[in-house]
Amino acid sequence: MSTEEPPPQPRRRGFRTGRLEAFSDGVFAIAVTLLVLDIAVSANAGQHLLRSIADLWPSYLAYVVSFSTIGAAWLAHNAITEYLDRTDAAFVRLNLLLLLFVSFLPFPTRLLADYIGEDSPERVAATFYGISLLLTTTMLLVLWRYAVRARLVRPDLADEEIQLLTERLTPGLGAYLVLIVSGLFLPIIAVIGYLGIALYYIIPFRRLSANILPKRRRRDRIGPPDRG
Amino acid sequence: MSTEEPPPQPRRRGFRTGRLEAFSDGVFAIAVTLLVLDIAVSANAGQHLLRSIADLWPSYLAYVVSFSTIGAAWLAHNAITEYLDRTDAAFVRLNLLLLLFVSFLPFPTRLLADYIGEDSPERVAATFYGISLLLTTTMLLVLWRYAVRARLVRPDLADEEIQLLTERLTPGLGAYLVLIVSGLFLPIIAVIGYLGIALYYIIPFRRLSANILPKRRRRDRIGPPDRG
Amino acid sequence: MSTEEPPPQPRRRGFRTGRLEAFSDGVFAIAVTLLVLDIAVSANAGQHLLRSIADLWPSYLAYVVSFSTIGAAWLAHNAITEYLDRTDAAFVRLNLLLLLFVSFLPFPTRLLADYIGEDSPERVAATFYGISLLLTTTMLLVLWRYAVRARLVRPDLADEEIQLLTERLTPGLGAYLVLIVSGLFLPIIAVIGYLGIALYYIIPFRRLSANILPKRRRRDRIGPPDRG
Amino acid sequence: MSTEEPPPQPRRRGFRTGRLEAFSDGVFAIAVTLLVLDIAVSANAGQHLLRSIADLWPSYLAYVVSFSTIGAAWLAHNAITEYLDRTDAAFVRLNLLLLLFVSFLPFPTRLLADYIGEDSPERVAATFYGISLLLTTTMLLVLWRYAVRARLVRPDLADEEIQLLTERLTPGLGAYLVLIVSGLFLPIIAVIGYLGIALYYIIPFRRLSANILPKRRRRDRIGPPDRG
Repeated sequence: MSTEEPPPQPRRRGFRTGRLEAFSDGVFAIAVTLLVLDIAVSANAGQHLLRSIADLWPSYLAYVVSFSTIGAAWLAHNAITEYLDRTDAAFVRLNLLLLLFVSFLPFPTRLLADYIGEDSPERVAATFYGISLLLTTTMLLVLWRYAVRARLVRPDLADEEIQLLTERLTPGLGAYLVLIVSGLFLPIIAVIGYLGIALYYIIPFRRLSANILPKRRRRDRIGPPDRG
Repeated sequence: MSTEEPPPQPRRRGFRTGRLEAFSDGVFAIAVTLLVLDIAVSANAGQHLLRSIADLWPSYLAYVVSFSTIGAAWLAHNAITEYLDRTDAAFVRLNLLLLLFVSFLPFPTRLLADYIGEDSPERVAATFYGISLLLTTTMLLVLWRYAVRARLVRPDLADEEIQLLTERLTPGLGAYLVLIVSGLFLPIIAVIGYLGIALYYIIPFRRLSANILPKRRRRDRIGPPDRG
Repeated sequence: MSTEEPPPQPRRRGFRTGRLEAFSDGVFAIAVTLLVLDIAVSANAGQHLLRSIADLWPSYLAYVVSFSTIGAAWLAHNAITEYLDRTDAAFVRLNLLLLLFVSFLPFPTRLLADYIGEDSPERVAATFYGISLLLTTTMLLVLWRYAVRARLVRPDLADEEIQLLTERLTPGLGAYLVLIVSGLFLPIIAVIGYLGIALYYIIPFRRLSANILPKRRRRDRIGPPDRG
Repeated sequence: MSTEEPPPQPRRRGFRTGRLEAFSDGVFAIAVTLLVLDIAVSANAGQHLLRSIADLWPSYLAYVVSFSTIGAAWLAHNAITEYLDRTDAAFVRLNLLLLLFVSFLPFPTRLLADYIGEDSPERVAATFYGISLLLTTTMLLVLWRYAVRARLVRPDLADEEIQLLTERLTPGLGAYLVLIVSGLFLPIIAVIGYLGIALYYIIPFRRLSANILPKRRRRDRIGPPDRG
């Protein structure tokens, strides 16, 4: 009969994971929603409003790229905390550092939207933007690597699964470096590339979960209450 | 006696539903609250403040229509996740796409508030606004249809209930299309119509839940912890 | 042994209370935090910065009054949902209407901060502000009265407790009406009065919970998981 | 066998802790994310964008100091609520007062960013900023001391643990006072000092949890659901 009862182990969330996730979700959600505040037509756009709206394409592009990147970071953050057995004090601090970069992203996004199309500042804005994205992604990898090294991950997690998430998070760093350099010559191409990285992070994570999660016992996967 | 115990199945939330809901709630709540930032009297409104406040009626109208539409989308999102047994990776991505449209809404809302009453730009603003609402509502229907097709809905859900929610979400699309076209000629009418659609979504959902939910076993309805 | 187990009844939260609370908390928290965006010194404040900061007292006053009022509304909202056994569809819609007024408050707050000290617009701003606060408080009472009438409150709640919360929420309406009228002649007095009402709501709720909650069985009070 | 079951006591969260934490997390997260809105290059920065971005170092400094301080306050808030057995009405009100100061911080942050480097206003801005940080930290200590005095902390908490958290929260007050006075003469030094205090709060809390938490029974530490 004791196997019928909710076993005590699944309550695996340790020190402050609940509030860490709530605070992180808040910062991700606000950073993503503040992006829209920087989309605006000029004050005298009245008589050519259709054209003014169309001329804002750099703002839309920057909005979509930043939204996708923050969305991808949120998904990766989810994958990391999903795999955690518990957190420790250092993990919480590293997480704060990640959030510092995430909540900074609306500023380079605004610069990018403002200066795309203006030759010289466009290169500066695209480079600054790329470096900000690189820092965010680096922190995600640091967070995950720390969690693995400090043995915070769930003991029932197979080594291949840990390896797979590491492999998913790593190549983005190289891609960002290549694009940041390219951005000095072809800023628009770099921005499209940043969108590509975000979509790469967003889309094939699907395969990851499709391949791995079903291997675990269904009850175990569903069991742990995500939020509390 | 085993029927007295909390059965293991009710813990039906699967992959990341808790954080998906928390992140979505955050984006909905912020999008709805940012709308107020665009309501402002002009700098020299001092001596005619009462009149300046009254002259802001387009801002109030846009505020109410957008608040109602986002509120209705939040209710529909609630209804969808309420019916889910679990989520999968694609659902989470489609949800991100929905949130991208939701968090974009403050921008067309601001345009609408700024240009109502100015003949030609008014048509542009109302059309742009209508298209943004249409995209949001379309994504809700896509999300729900995907959930049904991918068998993410709760197995105890009757086919009529699934059908009913589909029927609730669908007619809005046609109504938006009609209003977008009407908005080219009668923009104000279109805006009133958008409010009507939002209220249609908000109000008769009540009947839906009144009719359907009580049919389910009370314990089952109350059992699943909404948040975790 | 069955008395040792967590009884099934305490899971009293019904239709969507978890997300209703999360969404409401989000809107309250954002509305309260956006207030600070409207506090700013003028661009050329440099050489007289100390004086410029001191001259912003109307902004600080408006900030404190609005923060207190939204905080008091959040506390009252808490008291209401704490007493609920479940919610229904109409309650969720009335709650949306309450949030529409709450998230509107930063606008009258800004007007008040901008026009205190300017004779005629000051009266307009204080009146407009008072009406906005009145609408918010009225909606709280409507929400509570609806919950009582629709029998959404917990069955173990004594009639006096219900009565006490009603009595707590009601007098504010009269006080707001008196102050709105006074504000036409003595706007500053009215604003101080609005602060007084907020503090009245904030402070003696303490007595309420001190008197009533201990009467209930301790386990019952602590038992229901607040959040999930 | 009864020791195997989840004991009824661990459901220790009392009156409204769930929503208190959710609302607080929201305010902390929004305050921290709004900071970025005040980072902006001037409108005509185009041709010297790289230099304009570099010239914003006061904004970055202010951003990092305020982010760290709010992050440290969030961590301390976490430590406090982690140690609580329940909350009471007065605790909830004191918490509101803390949040009033937290959500005010973006304003002095903006002043600091705007006036660093301008001799006389720099001193005013640094002093005003320091006083705001002092008020926030004082409220944290007040909150904790109240919780101890009102016996809200968990009964299984050793006296040394309570003492340790008090000792962690106290020295910041003296340090802030010293730095506020120093800031009248050397504003930049004071700002660096404020960053130092935030890092002091952020980093050695780690030792605290490393030393203390493992002493408690592992199951007990992990058992209570953080969020619900």
